Amino acid sequence: MAASIIDGKAFAATVREKVAGHVARLKEENDITPGLAVVLVGEDPASEVYVAAKHKNTVAAGMASFEHKLPADASEEELFALIDQLNADPKVHGILCQFPVPDHLNERRVVARIDPSKDVDGLSVVNAGLLASGEKGLVSCTPLGCLMLLRDQVGNMSGKNAVVIGRSNLFGKPMAQLLLQESCTVTIAHSRTQDLAAVCRRADILVAAVGRAEMVKGDWVKPGATVIDVGISRIPHPEKPGKTKLLGDVDFAEAAEVASAITPVPGGVGPMTIACLLANTVTACCRANGLTEPEGLTA
Amino acid sequence: MAASIIDGKAFAATVREKVAGHVARLKEENDITPGLAVVLVGEDPASEVYVAAKHKNTVAAGMASFEHKLPADASEEELFALIDQLNADPKVHGILCQFPVPDHLNERRVVARIDPSKDVDGLSVVNAGLLASGEKGLVSCTPLGCLMLLRDQVGNMSGKNAVVIGRSNLFGKPMAQLLLQESCTVTIAHSRTQDLAAVCRRADILVAAVGRAEMVKGDWVKPGATVIDVGISRIPHPEKPGKTKLLGDVDFAEAAEVASAITPVPGGVGPMTIACLLANTVTACCRANGLTEPEGLTA
Repeated sequence: MAASIIDGKAFAATVREKVAGHVARLKEENDITPGLAVVLVGEDPASEVYVAAKHKNTVAAGMASFEHKLPADASEEELFALIDQLNADPKVHGILCQFPVPDHLNERRVVARIDPSKDVDGLSVVNAGLLASGEKGLVSCTPLGCLMLLRDQVGNMSGKNAVVIGRSNLFGKPMAQLLLQESCTVTIAHSRTQDLAAVCRRADILVAAVGRAEMVKGDWVKPGATVIDVGISRIPHPEKPGKTKLLGDVDFAEAAEVASAITPVPGGVGPMTIACLLANTVTACCRANGLTEPEGLTA
Repeated sequence: MAASIIDGKAFAATVREKVAGHVARLKEENDITPGLAVVLVGEDPASEVYVAAKHKNTVAAGMASFEHKLPADASEEELFALIDQLNADPKVHGILCQFPVPDHLNERRVVARIDPSKDVDGLSVVNAGLLASGEKGLVSCTPLGCLMLLRDQVGNMSGKNAVVIGRSNLFGKPMAQLLLQESCTVTIAHSRTQDLAAVCRRADILVAAVGRAEMVKGDWVKPGATVIDVGISRIPHPEKPGKTKLLGDVDFAEAAEVASAITPVPGGVGPMTIACLLANTVTACCRANGLTEPEGLTA
């Protein structure tokens, strides 16, 4: 195997440490405790696991964690009343509504209700616009996490060919914007792309976010490329009956023979998402209080 | 010469006709006259020419044209008071502040003051965010004009390789978003791009917006490509002393031997910009009044 494995778990731990350091300074020097509010509507078991993990990490970083649970049949009015209250609360610097919400609620309307300066998921139209305009906003956690890994691994990305597979609002489009900001030549590929293998083979930086297990084969990877695998698919375990296994969008074993560096699944991009949620909350807190924002935690 | 010449002047005339038809219907059926307000600060001669052209075209399409001139030393407060008044005026559906404004004014703050639903230049953060999110907004006039020319010339763009040279907020970035929306595989190239010629040679659709005269040579163009030239440089006329000549980013004579279709400079993209300003004003008017918006005039 030629490639070095990018240890997202270890890197996320260093991000969380940095965040905790900033939080401690904010408390000591400014008597401010950054606070993250998470709203959960209904009782989706997977969402409850995520929300619990976010809570644990928030508290571990020394921040205030506010959890709000609404019943599955909560009306838009009730949810909006809660969001308005959190928007107005000076102790709350980040607000996150855990998706999916029940069908009678509209995710885009929910996101639009959150004050953009507290939208630590970076999903709102205003934050998408700030990113697209090269202005300071809050950047969606997963692409921000990938950017941090790439900056650490590649350093100066100027002039590199970057290919992003996937064009979602959640990931592909903001990732492309971030890579453009780093002065990469950026190509956005997707399901309609012709000869995707050839497009990928030109990438010095290849970011896959499709959700199709092991779609990217070893011979799609340019020798020496850095490969970031954002996909997560759960498949039946090939050796352990009744068990499942997580796979990325990239055929890891094949790609690792060719790439210079690659993120594994699990343990690559995944752990960065919550770390970046904490980073965004500290950033939002500093901006809300007119304080210098932490270095290395933003786009 | 192999390529067909895309006649932007003629196409812009058809867009203006379509707009005029919609305006006439809006008057007849709904008793509504779409209105465009143009604000000019100071006395820049070039700006005065543009503003006069916009006024003439607005009136010719049957719309109301409101011109507001402020002195060169107008304060931000005065300008904002005017914008606020136009934002609140139900007869005004589009607002445009002619740039550049004098140095003591900040263009981004000016744009941000305009109600996004009246921002017919499509320059605001909110409209950039709507475009980036695939939602309905108002799209910057020059990229919208290029999109209209491409739809007319190419038809279905799904799966085509599109290369945009230039990554400005004004043109390159929104153009890339529009091409992505058409399901092209989109590459954004710029000054840091390595081997730009090779990148361009892969483009089925090549859009150049750099402002460097004749930078794109014939052998940068893929045989059969559609070439859209957004650049305009004014150079001393090679044969007529004391006169000047307009050149695009593309070496027209060379590229026309290779491309299947190409826009000339002048007479290509240029005339589309004002036509799209009128189109955006009608669209904004329909939306403001809860009416079906015209087909073929939006992204």
